[in-house]
Amino acid sequence: MLMSKLVGERTKTSPSDAVIKSHALMIRAGYIKLVANGIWSLAMPAKRIASKIERIIREEMDAIDGQECSFPVVMPRELWEESGRYTSIGDEMVRFTDRNNRGLVLGMTHEEAAVHFARDAVNSYQQLPFMIYQIQTKFRDEARARGGLIRVREFTMKDAYSFHISQEDLEQYYGRVYDAYNRIFKRIGMQNFVAVKSDTGMMGGSVAHEYMLLTDVGEDTIVICPHCGLKANMEVAESRLLPLPAEDALAAEEVYTGDAKEIAEVCALLGIDASKTVKAVSFNVRGEDTLVLCFLRGDLEVNEAKLKRVVKKDIVPSNLADSEELVAGNIGPIGLKLKNAVIVYDKSLQGAVNMVVGANKPLYHIKNVSLDRDVDIKEYVDIAKVRAGDLCPVCGQSLTVSNGIEIGNIFQLGVKYTKSMNMTVLNKEGKAVHPIMGCYGIGVGRAIASVAEERADDKGLNWPMAIAPWQVYLCALRIDNAEVKEKAYTLYQTMKEAGIEVIFDDREASPGFKFSDCDLMGIPIRVVISPRSLERGEVELQTRDGDVKTSVAYDGCIDAIRTIIREKM
Amino acid sequence: MLMSKLVGERTKTSPSDAVIKSHALMIRAGYIKLVANGIWSLAMPAKRIASKIERIIREEMDAIDGQECSFPVVMPRELWEESGRYTSIGDEMVRFTDRNNRGLVLGMTHEEAAVHFARDAVNSYQQLPFMIYQIQTKFRDEARARGGLIRVREFTMKDAYSFHISQEDLEQYYGRVYDAYNRIFKRIGMQNFVAVKSDTGMMGGSVAHEYMLLTDVGEDTIVICPHCGLKANMEVAESRLLPLPAEDALAAEEVYTGDAKEIAEVCALLGIDASKTVKAVSFNVRGEDTLVLCFLRGDLEVNEAKLKRVVKKDIVPSNLADSEELVAGNIGPIGLKLKNAVIVYDKSLQGAVNMVVGANKPLYHIKNVSLDRDVDIKEYVDIAKVRAGDLCPVCGQSLTVSNGIEIGNIFQLGVKYTKSMNMTVLNKEGKAVHPIMGCYGIGVGRAIASVAEERADDKGLNWPMAIAPWQVYLCALRIDNAEVKEKAYTLYQTMKEAGIEVIFDDREASPGFKFSDCDLMGIPIRVVISPRSLERGEVELQTRDGDVKTSVAYDGCIDAIRTIIREKM
Repeated sequence: MLMSKLVGERTKTSPSDAVIKSHALMIRAGYIKLVANGIWSLAMPAKRIASKIERIIREEMDAIDGQECSFPVVMPRELWEESGRYTSIGDEMVRFTDRNNRGLVLGMTHEEAAVHFARDAVNSYQQLPFMIYQIQTKFRDEARARGGLIRVREFTMKDAYSFHISQEDLEQYYGRVYDAYNRIFKRIGMQNFVAVKSDTGMMGGSVAHEYMLLTDVGEDTIVICPHCGLKANMEVAESRLLPLPAEDALAAEEVYTGDAKEIAEVCALLGIDASKTVKAVSFNVRGEDTLVLCFLRGDLEVNEAKLKRVVKKDIVPSNLADSEELVAGNIGPIGLKLKNAVIVYDKSLQGAVNMVVGANKPLYHIKNVSLDRDVDIKEYVDIAKVRAGDLCPVCGQSLTVSNGIEIGNIFQLGVKYTKSMNMTVLNKEGKAVHPIMGCYGIGVGRAIASVAEERADDKGLNWPMAIAPWQVYLCALRIDNAEVKEKAYTLYQTMKEAGIEVIFDDREASPGFKFSDCDLMGIPIRVVISPRSLERGEVELQTRDGDVKTSVAYDGCIDAIRTIIREKM
Repeated sequence: MLMSKLVGERTKTSPSDAVIKSHALMIRAGYIKLVANGIWSLAMPAKRIASKIERIIREEMDAIDGQECSFPVVMPRELWEESGRYTSIGDEMVRFTDRNNRGLVLGMTHEEAAVHFARDAVNSYQQLPFMIYQIQTKFRDEARARGGLIRVREFTMKDAYSFHISQEDLEQYYGRVYDAYNRIFKRIGMQNFVAVKSDTGMMGGSVAHEYMLLTDVGEDTIVICPHCGLKANMEVAESRLLPLPAEDALAAEEVYTGDAKEIAEVCALLGIDASKTVKAVSFNVRGEDTLVLCFLRGDLEVNEAKLKRVVKKDIVPSNLADSEELVAGNIGPIGLKLKNAVIVYDKSLQGAVNMVVGANKPLYHIKNVSLDRDVDIKEYVDIAKVRAGDLCPVCGQSLTVSNGIEIGNIFQLGVKYTKSMNMTVLNKEGKAVHPIMGCYGIGVGRAIASVAEERADDKGLNWPMAIAPWQVYLCALRIDNAEVKEKAYTLYQTMKEAGIEVIFDDREASPGFKFSDCDLMGIPIRVVISPRSLERGEVELQTRDGDVKTSVAYDGCIDAIRTIIREKM
């Protein structure tokens, strides 16, 4: 490829809305162009990176017996009604009608299409297990598109679906996918990534893992135990709390707290630590009149994902301003009179003594409350957010909390889709049973952006050899010089014939201009040919990562370049 | 791949709605599955064929300096408003709104996206010419989806866009694409295809060609001159008419024709040939009150595509039942009184003498009309459909008419999009000018179906080696026999290691069952291993096209297979 013909302008200025470096650099290097909110065009270099990532994914999916298929982007509404997701999924799914007024949707995931495809095509346990996958465009009407290719509305995704006769078989296969994903992310050049236990969300199912690239700009929060290696998304993470000093339970008594309503205000007034208070947090079940009232230790926060799983319904923060039953700021578990409410007690309250709670009337709290003694609590459940420093539930050591970008996910789905969509196979005993499914996703665009984010530096992008758009940036300095011109074009041709992927900067421009484009674009190897290098019969070789900086003979440079490519691939 | 695990059921019965063989066979072989009208899922073998076709297309596009990009499937309404096509395209374009009520469309072609991508990225004539392309999903809400993958609503398409500083440069590049297309269709195994001049339709522009696979089931009609090689789509085809015998012009006179209204009735009554009558055909401008009244020789038909280009507006057949100005069946060019009408005279009437025309009153026609003498005609234009046997406008020999499937198209667009979307570059003189565009499309799914249609036989599909899902169908007969099993699995493994693409029929099934699946799926080479063949230390080799039928030593069969693959590639 000739730089003079490459479509995609490089600029020095970062776009004003770019808050992370991969976003800014991908635009500055001319790799991507915004078409609409969360919708991008990819220029040739970005498309080349995408194709290389797709090839790696394809190889690893084929290696675990995947069958590459193609399901449609546009699907009939009826298919999603079968699974129940036509109504359970909100605005992020695009719905429209065709010229004959038939309902259609844009695919944001393809469990329904996979079951539709497979249910008539297999009928015996002997055809199981199998895995079908595709690499294809999807659309999700994301409310908060951001970060360039990190969070978009239209994206290319590898989505895979496996079908099994038993949970054991699914688990065994799930393990193979788990390993394949580790290979994929390693091969595409990700460094600091982990697999963490995660919430199954709208997918349904039980066990799930997310692959997370650990980075400060990540939107996800991950709890990690450096001691035993436990890793979990904050949404599902559990912990043990540091034990509080033992105390004798005193007699409960009302205490005047006046205007003090926030935990911090009450603590300041009474001279106690937040861990000696009980916090009330209220939600509503979405679309219902039901109140969900949570009590937990005053130093903790509610984890909404956990709470949703406890309530088994979608919840939204509640506004108590209009409540006649509750006194905001003075809510407590004693003497509550609620008509239509679910009350949830966090396990942090189990065994807690001498706590300060709201008195359910203005101006007062109650102190020295012992929950087990003073409140009729049927069950304590885990709804609290894990904090750095909490104890690992497995090994008891201190937990850390990191940010991460989700780069892939795998789910054990169970029979949610095969049951609702009535897919059966005959088992060994001749009985019709629903196959057990797993599903497995990787976003290609997000993978590009994640690698960019992890490896970029002040000068620009820095692609690993395996996915770089070109392996070599051939830089001719003083191309107006006849010898440079002739030798550079010859070398360009020789490289192409040798199978080296090369972009040739054939423009009449200054060395600084060319070097800066090369760095910005992040091509792994820079080869410079100039009047000075040719005086010595040499070209200059330098790698973007700084590992190599040398001069080699013009005539032998192909071998030297090949060696670098091989070592870095 | 193991046949026992391949998802996609093969069946003996053709779907009742399949009217062409490729449609029926692709379903019967388990290659495709209908999801909704005109929307299909592709099983692994079909996806493999698609990928091979895409690779061939990609190689040929790259060879003519194409830059592979990626434009979005979902685009903002504003982009299509810029070009004017948001309103000019009808129901075939899907329009919807997102969660924030912003208008979006599904891409059915990407001229707008290509110009949007390129207009900020290039600014000088020195960056021209360039060609950008993508291979991507598109959606067109086709009113008449049919024929399996022949005419669908969702499809994968290679679409390419080139930008030039001059018409000469476009024409020169257009020629390169023309040749590349011929190479592509040849490489994917099409045999009887031609490039024909075509209408530019909704694309705009002047010169265009369609690549047509000639087949009786094609929906397009193509006019070909076997003598000089002229080829044109019926929509733009021109011809010369066989000259009628010379006659002296007689005096015009009214003649009573009673109830005779159709051309055939008038001819029968008067004992004349249809070529001695003048036919009136009426249309309306779509959405307007304007009548378009056409006169042409009675033995000819109106070509609506040609008429549209003459009128420069969209037209629809008109219903004259309510007309007060016209007497249906007795309409003629003499004495017409029309308020809001365009009258068009076909060139077949130029110089015509002694014709019978309607008298514009009930029960009468006028005979012996000489158009040039009796009617005030400013201009004769070409609006007639070419017929087989008409004369070639170039060489004067007889034309033939064939059916064809459109497998690709190329357009010289001009500045329609760069002008409406305000894309400029500075030319050599430093003046801002609109680049001149070309665009070039190939549908991948239709290519699959077209190859299938052309090559299938009574036994099933018959893929050319270059795009076959697998090169070899390894058929183990009596796989319950220990030696067969061991030798078959070993051979399967050896083939894979040798880079031969093989599907291994490892099922316990009868020879007839396996052979029939192999034929139905259309795999080019069948290798049979059986107790009988192993007695002789051999395997049986047979090609789907019947060219090869032989036995070779088990130990040397890899070389024999490789030779066949190489010869047929």
